[in-house]
Amino acid sequence: MPKNIITQLIQKNDKKIVLLVMDGLGGLPKKPGGLTELETAYTPNLDRLAASGTCGLLDPVGPGITPGSGPAHFALFGYDPVEYNVGRGLLSAAGLGFPMQPGDFFMRANFATLDKNGLISDRRAGRLATDKNETLCKRLQESIKLPSVEKVFFRTEKEHRALVVLRGGKFSEQITETDPQQTGKPLVRARALVPEADFTAAAVGELSDKIIKTLAGEQQANCMLLRGYAGYRLFPGMPERFGLNPLAIAAYPMYKGIAGLVGMTVAEGLSTIEDEIAALQAKYKEYDFFYVHIKATDSRGEDGKFDDKVKVIEQVDKLIPEICALKPDVLVVTGDHSTPASLSGHSWHPVPALLAAPTCLPDLVTSFGERACLAGGLGRIPMKFLLGVALAHAGKLQKFGA
Amino acid sequence: MPKNIITQLIQKNDKKIVLLVMDGLGGLPKKPGGLTELETAYTPNLDRLAASGTCGLLDPVGPGITPGSGPAHFALFGYDPVEYNVGRGLLSAAGLGFPMQPGDFFMRANFATLDKNGLISDRRAGRLATDKNETLCKRLQESIKLPSVEKVFFRTEKEHRALVVLRGGKFSEQITETDPQQTGKPLVRARALVPEADFTAAAVGELSDKIIKTLAGEQQANCMLLRGYAGYRLFPGMPERFGLNPLAIAAYPMYKGIAGLVGMTVAEGLSTIEDEIAALQAKYKEYDFFYVHIKATDSRGEDGKFDDKVKVIEQVDKLIPEICALKPDVLVVTGDHSTPASLSGHSWHPVPALLAAPTCLPDLVTSFGERACLAGGLGRIPMKFLLGVALAHAGKLQKFGA
Repeated sequence: MPKNIITQLIQKNDKKIVLLVMDGLGGLPKKPGGLTELETAYTPNLDRLAASGTCGLLDPVGPGITPGSGPAHFALFGYDPVEYNVGRGLLSAAGLGFPMQPGDFFMRANFATLDKNGLISDRRAGRLATDKNETLCKRLQESIKLPSVEKVFFRTEKEHRALVVLRGGKFSEQITETDPQQTGKPLVRARALVPEADFTAAAVGELSDKIIKTLAGEQQANCMLLRGYAGYRLFPGMPERFGLNPLAIAAYPMYKGIAGLVGMTVAEGLSTIEDEIAALQAKYKEYDFFYVHIKATDSRGEDGKFDDKVKVIEQVDKLIPEICALKPDVLVVTGDHSTPASLSGHSWHPVPALLAAPTCLPDLVTSFGERACLAGGLGRIPMKFLLGVALAHAGKLQKFGA
Repeated sequence: MPKNIITQLIQKNDKKIVLLVMDGLGGLPKKPGGLTELETAYTPNLDRLAASGTCGLLDPVGPGITPGSGPAHFALFGYDPVEYNVGRGLLSAAGLGFPMQPGDFFMRANFATLDKNGLISDRRAGRLATDKNETLCKRLQESIKLPSVEKVFFRTEKEHRALVVLRGGKFSEQITETDPQQTGKPLVRARALVPEADFTAAAVGELSDKIIKTLAGEQQANCMLLRGYAGYRLFPGMPERFGLNPLAIAAYPMYKGIAGLVGMTVAEGLSTIEDEIAALQAKYKEYDFFYVHIKATDSRGEDGKFDDKVKVIEQVDKLIPEICALKPDVLVVTGDHSTPASLSGHSWHPVPALLAAPTCLPDLVTSFGERACLAGGLGRIPMKFLLGVALAHAGKLQKFGA
């Protein structure tokens, strides 16, 4: 299906779509023979939606591929996750609201610790305190100039994570990362992978040296690992691409950043799930597409906390009636990827999804769970097609061809 | 899968494939909690085929995409529906058996009514009588010459619909339609969307003016809306592409036209379902692929007549034994798209399909219906792959690779 077929078919109307994303929703049993987190959770409201709607399983990138949060979210938003894959640096910049300019070069940076032999002893500088990170970024910002580029920016993210941006140069992403990916090794020298990247490799190498010089004397954070390289890139926005007026309701910077990259208005100042539902209610009249992001399912999965992930799902289930009370024309509940607590990390398992709308043909699925969804009417489809199905049920797509 | 892989594997034999298409077969329940048209219909013969064969669900174009009849039929015939999508003008020309020539430019035209202020008051000229359409097309044919092109042809289709063809010029489809798509608006001036289309836009603009001049004095049909632009296009035929000797058994011009475009022999003079079955019996020895098209399922769906659509399905079911008596090696029963009576139009819902052949692995499906097919052995596949599966069961495909 050509990427712009949906765009050609858009017809705007007032119908409203709510896309509720429980990050890392998919899971696995704690023990062989057991139930997954979602299957274990008591979810009468989600089960009712599953029974009246259509269920299925989504592959974020493809069978066997474990996605990062970036590609998974691009797929949820109807963008091909491979074509639109970008370096983490750009996602960080978007999440921090950094005022990007065409030509900028973005890096995700970790403060890290070099021992007296010049070997990495801690890749996260002891999970540096965020305020210390801010002090150091300020010092780096004041001290470092690179003769070969116009400007260098240092911005604190959280704990040991920072954003570094180079501006004014002909940059290429085709250089090696300076992160050796394990302790006991020295920093890797940035190296050009193609001749056009020589300039960037030299600039990043010089930058790395100056960071070490500037941080000399620091015990913990005396160097930076530079990675997640990304050039500036303009994304076709959801308003132009899908005719939507979308609002992102998320608490975490990265998800707000991705939403901003695809042209969503981003609600600010939210931190709890209850905040998010309140924002949905408050803004419901002003938009026609709502991306509501629940982070805690993924966090508990990453922590390996099966029972806590179950509790988060149950907490979300209790709030479903408040969403249904708004009477969205299409309500989709899914995850961006699976994060089984038993794996303590993202996984490649397909993600359960339910879509409730009056134009659904209800399938035989009566509870919302990974295995129940196997029998669902949505089938098992690439995640990037989900948005088109939601648009169809909202009456926002014309017929293709005569 | 590369588009010509099937062509590379073709091995001819005498085995016969019958593809029975109930147009708009897929449906939805009349009321929440109910059954679809197909699920409601009493279909003992189709159920028996479903039980002995393999069932599944087909996506004509892609998840969420509602197809027109053209793309849906191209997919049924094993052609990528996006790659082979063509303007309605060409489908009309094919349906009328218009003697096309390379370079021709085809338009679907509606006779319409302009009020005294020059605004469209009826986009269908009161569903003009077909004989009046013929009289007017004759007058237009005699009166109108365009200095910039060699020839103009006017051909009656039915009621308010006509075909207009320009010949002898360097035409482009990249111009705007003159149809404002709603009443109370003036005709739209044809406008080039790319510089190469300036010639076409000027010719179509001049044509539109001359039509209005020629029809001045007519009360109902005093202008034409010009749309569905299509250049001449040669299709790789099913004989070359799939090694088949195919016969189309259809009553409606458009379906005969599409079948003709892909190189089928087209049976003439059929109007009822019984006619069609009789034609299948009469011609059974001469061909090895039979496309049998039932229009009434779609028509009743478009009319919003749930019970009448059920009756058509039951009428077709009663004729299934006559088809089975011919002992086709492969019998496929499906639709081209869904036309739920509850939506009174085409929809994006996947289409139930059954394939019966001795080489089938029967699945657990024992009745032919949308939800039963969810569990079918064909799975949920793009419609364009169906023909390849039918060819395989007919022993018409060699092994791929060593």
